[in-house]
Amino acid sequence: MNKADVIIIGGSAAGLAAANAGKTSYPDKEFLLLRKEELVMVPCGIPYIFGSLETSEQNVLPADAMYDKLGIHHQQSEVQSIDSENKKVVLEDGKTIEYDKLVLATGSKPKVPSWLHGTDLENVFTIPKNKIYLDKMRDKLASANKIVTIGAGFIGVEISDEFAKSGKDVTLVEKLPSVLSVAFDTEIASKAGEILEKNGVRVKTGKGVRELVGNNGKVSKVILEDGNEIEADAVILSMGYEANSDLAKKAGLNLEVNNTISVDEYMRTSDPDIIAVGDCAEKRHFVTRKLTNPMLASTACAEGRIAGMNLFKLSVVKTFSGTISIYSTAIRDHALGTAGVTEREAKAEGFDIITGYFEGMDRHPGKLPNMHHQAVKLIVARESGIIIGAEAIGGESVGELTNLLGFIVQNRTSIQNLVTSQIGTHPMLTGSPAAYPLMKAAEMAYSKLRNRK
Amino acid sequence: MNKADVIIIGGSAAGLAAANAGKTSYPDKEFLLLRKEELVMVPCGIPYIFGSLETSEQNVLPADAMYDKLGIHHQQSEVQSIDSENKKVVLEDGKTIEYDKLVLATGSKPKVPSWLHGTDLENVFTIPKNKIYLDKMRDKLASANKIVTIGAGFIGVEISDEFAKSGKDVTLVEKLPSVLSVAFDTEIASKAGEILEKNGVRVKTGKGVRELVGNNGKVSKVILEDGNEIEADAVILSMGYEANSDLAKKAGLNLEVNNTISVDEYMRTSDPDIIAVGDCAEKRHFVTRKLTNPMLASTACAEGRIAGMNLFKLSVVKTFSGTISIYSTAIRDHALGTAGVTEREAKAEGFDIITGYFEGMDRHPGKLPNMHHQAVKLIVARESGIIIGAEAIGGESVGELTNLLGFIVQNRTSIQNLVTSQIGTHPMLTGSPAAYPLMKAAEMAYSKLRNRK
Repeated sequence: MNKADVIIIGGSAAGLAAANAGKTSYPDKEFLLLRKEELVMVPCGIPYIFGSLETSEQNVLPADAMYDKLGIHHQQSEVQSIDSENKKVVLEDGKTIEYDKLVLATGSKPKVPSWLHGTDLENVFTIPKNKIYLDKMRDKLASANKIVTIGAGFIGVEISDEFAKSGKDVTLVEKLPSVLSVAFDTEIASKAGEILEKNGVRVKTGKGVRELVGNNGKVSKVILEDGNEIEADAVILSMGYEANSDLAKKAGLNLEVNNTISVDEYMRTSDPDIIAVGDCAEKRHFVTRKLTNPMLASTACAEGRIAGMNLFKLSVVKTFSGTISIYSTAIRDHALGTAGVTEREAKAEGFDIITGYFEGMDRHPGKLPNMHHQAVKLIVARESGIIIGAEAIGGESVGELTNLLGFIVQNRTSIQNLVTSQIGTHPMLTGSPAAYPLMKAAEMAYSKLRNRK
Repeated sequence: MNKADVIIIGGSAAGLAAANAGKTSYPDKEFLLLRKEELVMVPCGIPYIFGSLETSEQNVLPADAMYDKLGIHHQQSEVQSIDSENKKVVLEDGKTIEYDKLVLATGSKPKVPSWLHGTDLENVFTIPKNKIYLDKMRDKLASANKIVTIGAGFIGVEISDEFAKSGKDVTLVEKLPSVLSVAFDTEIASKAGEILEKNGVRVKTGKGVRELVGNNGKVSKVILEDGNEIEADAVILSMGYEANSDLAKKAGLNLEVNNTISVDEYMRTSDPDIIAVGDCAEKRHFVTRKLTNPMLASTACAEGRIAGMNLFKLSVVKTFSGTISIYSTAIRDHALGTAGVTEREAKAEGFDIITGYFEGMDRHPGKLPNMHHQAVKLIVARESGIIIGAEAIGGESVGELTNLLGFIVQNRTSIQNLVTSQIGTHPMLTGSPAAYPLMKAAEMAYSKLRNRK
């Protein structure tokens, strides 16, 4: 092909969603998706190739069949540059392809802090979304026993749990006072830390790392800021991700201070014919309106859908009005989820808030098999009664509960609305109707709101 | 006590929720809850005392501790009549207690059709919310092997599944063409029937019952309308419930044609100082506005909360604007949930609708352990794009997913809103962000809506 109505660069979640929504919305347009990888990993499935899945092949995104079915062209090619003036992309072999609209879904890459010595030692790994790298890493880790994970965000937590499942000796080091502490307040985050500990992960929070030390070029220990040392056969750096925005920068598109590509609510960049979605695109927090980039495939998909639908015809009812940073994670048969702001974040931003917190059960009566305790926390703006954040921890049903929390936050639901809502409960599936943790947390927040008035 | 500011009659879900919300909202008022049972069963837990729970004691509502903590008086007394003119209730021993506000939460009782012969035979049971009856029933059923359940609503389905779990020979007979067919469309209901069959319940749908036949006064077979016979050691009638509204009727309160007590959106009866909540109270369907009475503890709790909050001070933002008939149910490790109208019901009512249906997985990649297929159906009013019904089937996470569906329906969410929503996904907890069944069903409905325009 030397011309397509729409070219999409990147074949992970955001690119896939944009291609799908775009082609479905504009079936008469020709779509071409370019990706540099032969096989794309399901991004959030990556930690699970180190334990729960038998091979990395089981974690390949089954996208090609969908593209073929929808009539979306796709090819494996790395784009070298964008000629935005002449509206074409330049491939590695020098060939060019013209576009009418261009979607950048170039993703993110792991951060490796420049101040940290020893990151170039053998058996020090990051977790990029790259099957070839990950397969090599998997092979090397097979013979490693003592593993140190640095950074207890959700990737660090999940991969540590996976290593522990396969019987390795795992230490998880985090500079902040608790694991997952950007997304969860202490009540919930501390429970996550306890669950990890109980399942064999040594958790060291409030501990910064000074350097990685090697022996014959291979990592052998991690030295903490307090001078303590941890022996290591391998080190995993899960210290965050940064936007892949080099192509956009070279093409002269505006970038934000965190190097994400500036976009508006229709996901358009500073060039109106170039759209950016996913980890590489600017994200504002739905509540704080500040720059944020939670690097979530689900957020990327929401952006991709919106971009696809708005490609040739804008709609004011289909915009992306900021990320609610919604995500869920699992440790064994426990799960956690979050949406919106934490209490800590809300206070730091200057919101006058009240909270509701309730700890109950996810079965009723509680004597039923497989009961987990379930806790829900709500963060409510006092002046308006609007729920601006929610967190939960419990059994696996917290995964879908998180989507209810997210829906509540993104629809700016008032606590009065929630407290009078109808919910469905079932002995084997949820808490009791009289002690459903979300409703009890809502009642508590509402009661505080009313008594202050 | 010979006077209380608020008397609540009935100690199950609705009464408990009204007492709790009332006392929390008006802490200075004296609350007295009267109930006729010594021990109240968790209503939705009743089917599980026949299998998953070891004793019926494990299914007792732990309400008294809560009442004591909140300072709500409670006593076991059956109310004989209400003297609404003098605002007092008369107990069985002739004593009277005055009230300022009276809450009726008198519940429902099983329907036994008068046309059905043989319902008075030994070993023919209904499923009332009565521990003494249920304990005797449990004892008698211990020696019964061949069990026939008549009526495949959720109680009939759940109890049949429980009997099958304990190895009994169970036949479930239903006159309608599929199990659970009031609440689910055929795509979903037929899957539920298949799961039951696969787990040892013989399902006979489209079969009416002619009569129950006995031998020496004890039931021995069920004769179907088509003349076929099913041998039975015991028969369970799960043919619906009717409101307990005798007290209200005697007191001269207005009733609806289905014998529920007429109420307004604040749950007030025709006597402004008497409130009715739960199974005994009139319910209008949120979408069709017709009389309905799904007899759900969770709906009862929502009404109880609203009644309690409005007892002495009405609030226009805290009303009950019709039941969305939300509920979930489980068969082994499968679950189903519904909210709003089915496609069939919507069409019968005269709505011009479109639907979206998607069948995917509740893990991603699908190779992860414990993956269940998950299907979601959405029913959307074409003219407005408002989602008026939703159904799902899948693994246990469908229990909480149902609450998201319910929240969508009761907030009159538009399909444009849903299709641009942010969701949270996780490999171990939900479908993939690119193939999350709810979003895919939304995309499909939206695409139909747009293409017709």
